[in-house]
Amino acid sequence: MALKPSLPKGTRDFLPKTMLIREYILDNMRNVFKKYGFLPIETPAMENASTLTGKYGEEGDRLIFKIMPRGEKAKVDSDKIKAKEALRYDLTVPFARFVVQNQNEIGFPFKRYQIQPVWRAEAPQRGRFREFYQCDADAIGSDSLLLELDFIQIYREVFETLNLKVQIKINNRKLLAGFAEVFGIQDRLTDFTICLDKLDKIGEEGVVEEMKQKGFEEKALQGFRQIASLKGSNAEILKQIIPILQNSEIGRKGIDELNFLIQNIDENCPLSLDLTLARGLDYYTGAIFEVVSEEVKMGSIGGGGRYDDLTSIFGLKNVSGIGISFGLDRIQLVLEELDRLPKFENQSTQILFFNFGEELALESFKWVKALRAQGIKADIYPDVAKFKKQIAYASNRGVSFIALIEKMPEDGADTLQIRNMQSREEEFLNLEQLIAKLNNN
Amino acid sequence: MALKPSLPKGTRDFLPKTMLIREYILDNMRNVFKKYGFLPIETPAMENASTLTGKYGEEGDRLIFKIMPRGEKAKVDSDKIKAKEALRYDLTVPFARFVVQNQNEIGFPFKRYQIQPVWRAEAPQRGRFREFYQCDADAIGSDSLLLELDFIQIYREVFETLNLKVQIKINNRKLLAGFAEVFGIQDRLTDFTICLDKLDKIGEEGVVEEMKQKGFEEKALQGFRQIASLKGSNAEILKQIIPILQNSEIGRKGIDELNFLIQNIDENCPLSLDLTLARGLDYYTGAIFEVVSEEVKMGSIGGGGRYDDLTSIFGLKNVSGIGISFGLDRIQLVLEELDRLPKFENQSTQILFFNFGEELALESFKWVKALRAQGIKADIYPDVAKFKKQIAYASNRGVSFIALIEKMPEDGADTLQIRNMQSREEEFLNLEQLIAKLNNN
Repeated sequence: MALKPSLPKGTRDFLPKTMLIREYILDNMRNVFKKYGFLPIETPAMENASTLTGKYGEEGDRLIFKIMPRGEKAKVDSDKIKAKEALRYDLTVPFARFVVQNQNEIGFPFKRYQIQPVWRAEAPQRGRFREFYQCDADAIGSDSLLLELDFIQIYREVFETLNLKVQIKINNRKLLAGFAEVFGIQDRLTDFTICLDKLDKIGEEGVVEEMKQKGFEEKALQGFRQIASLKGSNAEILKQIIPILQNSEIGRKGIDELNFLIQNIDENCPLSLDLTLARGLDYYTGAIFEVVSEEVKMGSIGGGGRYDDLTSIFGLKNVSGIGISFGLDRIQLVLEELDRLPKFENQSTQILFFNFGEELALESFKWVKALRAQGIKADIYPDVAKFKKQIAYASNRGVSFIALIEKMPEDGADTLQIRNMQSREEEFLNLEQLIAKLNNN
Repeated sequence: MALKPSLPKGTRDFLPKTMLIREYILDNMRNVFKKYGFLPIETPAMENASTLTGKYGEEGDRLIFKIMPRGEKAKVDSDKIKAKEALRYDLTVPFARFVVQNQNEIGFPFKRYQIQPVWRAEAPQRGRFREFYQCDADAIGSDSLLLELDFIQIYREVFETLNLKVQIKINNRKLLAGFAEVFGIQDRLTDFTICLDKLDKIGEEGVVEEMKQKGFEEKALQGFRQIASLKGSNAEILKQIIPILQNSEIGRKGIDELNFLIQNIDENCPLSLDLTLARGLDYYTGAIFEVVSEEVKMGSIGGGGRYDDLTSIFGLKNVSGIGISFGLDRIQLVLEELDRLPKFENQSTQILFFNFGEELALESFKWVKALRAQGIKADIYPDVAKFKKQIAYASNRGVSFIALIEKMPEDGADTLQIRNMQSREEEFLNLEQLIAKLNNN
């Protein structure tokens, strides 16, 4: 009996229509990455399980897809079967592994982009999948703030080419560490930033309430209120922080870094300092970024930051890096919601020859070959079929012109009847005229 | 303690240098696919295990990577843990599943290409990996021989654009079935084609010997000798087969199909009828193809054929299709061996600004921004470093020009010192001149 075909939950087929949208987004990204000096790499889908486990916290470990060992027959508790391989959970840990393993080949600073799927055994829900693409660019082996400037510009340029209005939020982990220091809560930095991060959602009083429940003392609450009340331009906000952090060395370092970026970025760049931005990942140590759409409520469509010690887990110490990531699925949703996608007409067949019989088809096929030799996307409907069926096929595929050879040409005849699928205009053209028409269309 | 980084056996990292080669090959393929009316799809890496098992024979089943079930605690024999998901083993079975599952959306005939990795737990060896890309194009929902012509042309055109000389071998399963019928060995078609396939390697007497060992009788041996002795052009060979197969209906059908292709293909197409070509896969039912390099001994770098019933395993009957595949790894090896790869200069940074200090770097950065705004791949070395180190970096990355701002420009100065990395020529240019130079280079 035939199997009813289906897919594992949380995974997707991508049909041509969707693929063209995704390629359009990715091509824009790739062009900008290359312009800024980044080159592509790829790593295998499978890593050694030991490379991945312990890098994403306990919850993360549970979400890693592991590969079943082969050829082992002993009776064992299935929890104790040790998987040797696992599917990558993100591109960051494999990249750290890659850098250490290939350190003698790549040379530093090393700038790469990587666009590949990752797998997570999360409960699927709207917009959350078990297989999804990550699009990362990282520069490793330099702590120059010029790289922060580059990444801000990359975000700006990618979204400009996609015709999307975004806000690039920026903060700095050193600043957050400085706040924790002066508020006397150094040991609770993560708890503190988790609360801070909720300001947008639950408001100032909500955050204060939550901080109280978590046992933060008055000094921390006051500190938070002070941060939450800061207003003005990026430079103005930064200026107001100076007195708050004057006694924290790390805090002052954070101010200096942010100040350099704000001073040196283009004035019209949509960069906004957001002191509540925390980013969940523990490895960030300097600038952190998050990008949100100004036009569609969608959560972040990009994020990243500076990390000072990512490769040390694999034995390469004191190598600073910085990276950003783009959320392909969400960017696609934003573009679709705003109807900002191009028509992709240039991807489809430019002219489709109808098929009215074997001899006529071979006559058409000569034209198809001549057009293809000129680089034109020409095709022939492969079977003899009703006109209605062939028209439906052409229309579904967004074909621009159809060509109709309904009887064998008379001796010396060199023209062909074509129809514009949109305007329904028909005309007779010879090969030269047809090539000119299709190239100009 | 730090882990020594490594990869699962049979898997690879792709560094930028290799990625550029692979992208060059794939871009050529994609352009040809699109010109011939094929559009991209993707399917997930994981399929339901039931979709894959039983499709590749017993040996194939053993080579499928299965995903470890999550959250199951019962003590069980590890052989009996049923994996729910598995990694795809090829693109063909997932494509058949895709077609059936999405049949109402895609419309027939459906022409897709698909370029994605597959996984097989084979013993790795030179040129054989556990993760490798397959590059497939298929047209499904039509039995028109015009599609066979298209696929032959696609092979021809892809390898022409890659500047590789190839031979496109063709045969037809119906012809082979016809031979088996007239030689009285219908029930041993597979055994017979396996022997036939070895003619190249072990010669006519070798094959006869092997056929004897396998118990084939005199009639079959004579039949084989008759096939092996055929010589001449494609059309001449085909003509000589007509009397041999006159009593086999399926054989005559095979002759008709091959005749149509040979009559209608361009004369200068490197197509060669090879009666010993069998292709291992059982699902082929008509034309079969194999492509080999004329210049490097490498085995097949492409293969494919017509299948009449691939989707029936998933419940969609009587849908004929035809597909071809390209061997990316081997094509890369051939190009490398022949040194036929382009230089990829257009992928690298066009001009790298050296960094001689923070203030000077910011001055350089203004130039970098102005150049990038013109779409030029300009970059700055992020750190203050010795000249020698920066030159090595530029040279490793194939940078065309370097720019040297070693002191702050005087008021009104608008030129910049650049050096051609190949000729070592130096000159002073203003922004306009520099843009013109880089765009023309």
